Amino acid sequence: MGAHADFRQVTKDGLDYALAVHGVADAALEARLMELYLTLDAYPDVTGCLEALRAAGLATAILSNGEPEMLRAAVTSAGLTSLFDAVLSVEEAGIFKPAPRTYQLAVDRLQVPVARICFVSTNAWDAAGAAYFGFRVAWLNRFAQRLEQLPGAPAAVIAGLDELPGLLSR
Amino acid sequence: MGAHADFRQVTKDGLDYALAVHGVADAALEARLMELYLTLDAYPDVTGCLEALRAAGLATAILSNGEPEMLRAAVTSAGLTSLFDAVLSVEEAGIFKPAPRTYQLAVDRLQVPVARICFVSTNAWDAAGAAYFGFRVAWLNRFAQRLEQLPGAPAAVIAGLDELPGLLSR
Repeated sequence: MGAHADFRQVTKDGLDYALAVHGVADAALEARLMELYLTLDAYPDVTGCLEALRAAGLATAILSNGEPEMLRAAVTSAGLTSLFDAVLSVEEAGIFKPAPRTYQLAVDRLQVPVARICFVSTNAWDAAGAAYFGFRVAWLNRFAQRLEQLPGAPAAVIAGLDELPGLLSR
Repeated sequence: MGAHADFRQVTKDGLDYALAVHGVADAALEARLMELYLTLDAYPDVTGCLEALRAAGLATAILSNGEPEMLRAAVTSAGLTSLFDAVLSVEEAGIFKPAPRTYQLAVDRLQVPVARICFVSTNAWDAAGAAYFGFRVAWLNRFAQRLEQLPGAPAAVIAGLDELPGLLSR
């Protein structure tokens, strides 16, 4: 509709709605659920993958729908701060992925041509959107899901991040 | 992502995906499900509401995400053809509601100022999007659902279309 609120707000709005529909009025529970987003764990294959990519001379970045403070907190909590060259939030574009403006943000901020960016996502819609935009996409399909019928085909499908450094060194 | 396919295509893509995920390979079933969209019934309060609005001198129109052929077939099947002044599909705009361009289509095609259009929808997201655009919106809440937390507030909430003519004659 052309309006925008940041990810923390829409997450809270969605949670408020779900709690109200189910008759749950518990402010402490809601606050705790919202805070869990700030202390997310990373999958065990994340650190090794990032280390290998950087050892190969590649720059690493996050491009997330999360708002900047959520991202900073989550990356810190997972102990990954030193492994990223950039942590980009779509808030700079004022619209969520898969809008093309959000993917353009990575091109502009990283100063890397679109076809030289390998974009990795577990979300099939994000993999499709990024591929349609022009990134080389590895869809991280951890749970053997079916490829969705969307424009934009991933260049590769991987089951774990341990597969990624080998793909990129070819 | 900036790509567009019409409603019949995305409906078929979604159905194909769902059938495949559930291991159902039945082309006749799929064809029958797709055809059901062409023979939808109308709720029993639709005809009386449209007749009352037109008797009051108001123009009536559909603005739907459906593609033109689906709309024509469904309106014909429900026996409502003579009760609409216009049947507008978002396909002219090449994007789905709640994108503002789709609501603008009604303003342009009906030649009625935005604030003089009463927009009715059962979909809370569509009611919100239309209200945010500037229409006077009646959210048709047939199942006593909770108002969603979205920008754009409906001017009225009705439980059935029998309530609509009275609201507009005030």
